[in-house]
Amino acid sequence: MTRPQAEAWVPIDDRGLAYGDGVFETVLVRDGMPLLWPQHMQRLAEGCRRLGIPMPASGTLDMLPAQTGPGLKVLKLIVTRGGGGRGYQTPAVPEPRLLWQATDFTPQPRRWWDGVRVRHCRLQLGMQPLLAGIKHLNRLENVMARREWDDADVAEGLLCDSQGRLVEATSMNLFWLRQGRLETPQLNACGVAGTLRAALMQRLSIAEVSVGSQVLEDAEAVWLGNSVQGLWPVARLDDADGNPLRQWLLVEAHRGLQGEAHALLGYPTAPTR
Amino acid sequence: MTRPQAEAWVPIDDRGLAYGDGVFETVLVRDGMPLLWPQHMQRLAEGCRRLGIPMPASGTLDMLPAQTGPGLKVLKLIVTRGGGGRGYQTPAVPEPRLLWQATDFTPQPRRWWDGVRVRHCRLQLGMQPLLAGIKHLNRLENVMARREWDDADVAEGLLCDSQGRLVEATSMNLFWLRQGRLETPQLNACGVAGTLRAALMQRLSIAEVSVGSQVLEDAEAVWLGNSVQGLWPVARLDDADGNPLRQWLLVEAHRGLQGEAHALLGYPTAPTR
Repeated sequence: MTRPQAEAWVPIDDRGLAYGDGVFETVLVRDGMPLLWPQHMQRLAEGCRRLGIPMPASGTLDMLPAQTGPGLKVLKLIVTRGGGGRGYQTPAVPEPRLLWQATDFTPQPRRWWDGVRVRHCRLQLGMQPLLAGIKHLNRLENVMARREWDDADVAEGLLCDSQGRLVEATSMNLFWLRQGRLETPQLNACGVAGTLRAALMQRLSIAEVSVGSQVLEDAEAVWLGNSVQGLWPVARLDDADGNPLRQWLLVEAHRGLQGEAHALLGYPTAPTR
Repeated sequence: MTRPQAEAWVPIDDRGLAYGDGVFETVLVRDGMPLLWPQHMQRLAEGCRRLGIPMPASGTLDMLPAQTGPGLKVLKLIVTRGGGGRGYQTPAVPEPRLLWQATDFTPQPRRWWDGVRVRHCRLQLGMQPLLAGIKHLNRLENVMARREWDDADVAEGLLCDSQGRLVEATSMNLFWLRQGRLETPQLNACGVAGTLRAALMQRLSIAEVSVGSQVLEDAEAVWLGNSVQGLWPVARLDDADGNPLRQWLLVEAHRGLQGEAHALLGYPTAPTR
């Protein structure tokens, strides 16, 4: 079998480097078998469509996971618009560049699946409907938000948009249970629509809502999740100064949604204690 | 003389490519002499400070323009945070990467210095005070805005923020004369603070204002400019559908500000006709 055509370096004039003009995916792969592959490919296609970048051939993409070898890996794919154009002006006929890299993966400590501590971030996400939901390469807001804390006990930071509405965590989507109803933030102005989120929404009734962060203090259960780490119940929520706002005990509901998520990813589905 | 340490390629795990985690400059260079170099270095330093990236040594940077050889060039510099970190989390001790490339440069057609046609863009810039003003690598909004037209007679597109306030053009700053006063948009929520803009503001009284786009229809003169192309008087402003909103005749005031700008860049300073 020939190695799929892909590169691991880009030149200075690649638009992915110059402008973040591209999209990416990080895919969990077990012994060469990708998890949530259809969702990843769908989001990649939607990102390419939105930016006007030709999607790499599915035959090329589909061959990549098997190249990662045995064990638990994260396969990172980047599709850039390639070179060309004049400044920001895009080339009439782009020649996209596909890059990929597989790295060994170890999830965060197992105890995080029993509950994590999170905090609010001060940074408010700018609102840009044209780019909302897709996993594009302009991620400085996520980087800057992640720089707000360095306490290793804080698993994630929650982000609101510039109008104060809940959006996501720096690298995870947010879910909560309120009056028996599963909810997650609408992502029509900013944020990344995660593939685990998409898969859960295909299976369960999860309402997309536009609400401020105070909703969490009334929630019966809160989770963060993505397609690589799985689903973390939130045990404690702090404000942006690290002062506790609310704590939650691990309840059966937590394990229910986590079980759905972890079945999709091949992670353990622990019994409620 | 040894060649300055710089690279022209980055690996897939460079954070500049992965997240747009870095800053850049495009510098006009005449026969090895950079124009507005102090302003470029000041903005680069401010960008690095804001992002928490160590600034490359000035000795290394200062050697680059002379490497570009004879003729009119654009020197592009990129400073990324380099590799490392865990996802969005930045490494405790970043090892920044400096990349540079010089390319031959020809300004837009000379007639553009006598007046250009511009249009409003539909895209509204997201507001992110933490990143406003610096020339970071997250430029998808500029790319997407530039994709709104492909009429070669339209020189630039004007951008407002998500609250409808004027900010800039896709790759230029905006200036206008109103009741005898020079004004330019405030850039505290979004936009790039250009080096030509900075140099003009050091020399002239130019007020930074927060206003909607209707102000342009009352303006006596309007210009767009950057440190590479110089200063273009605006002769015609169209709406986002290409319908004309306002036209301006070239007046002495146009040549005045242009003369200041072009003296800084070594471009012709035409007499008023």
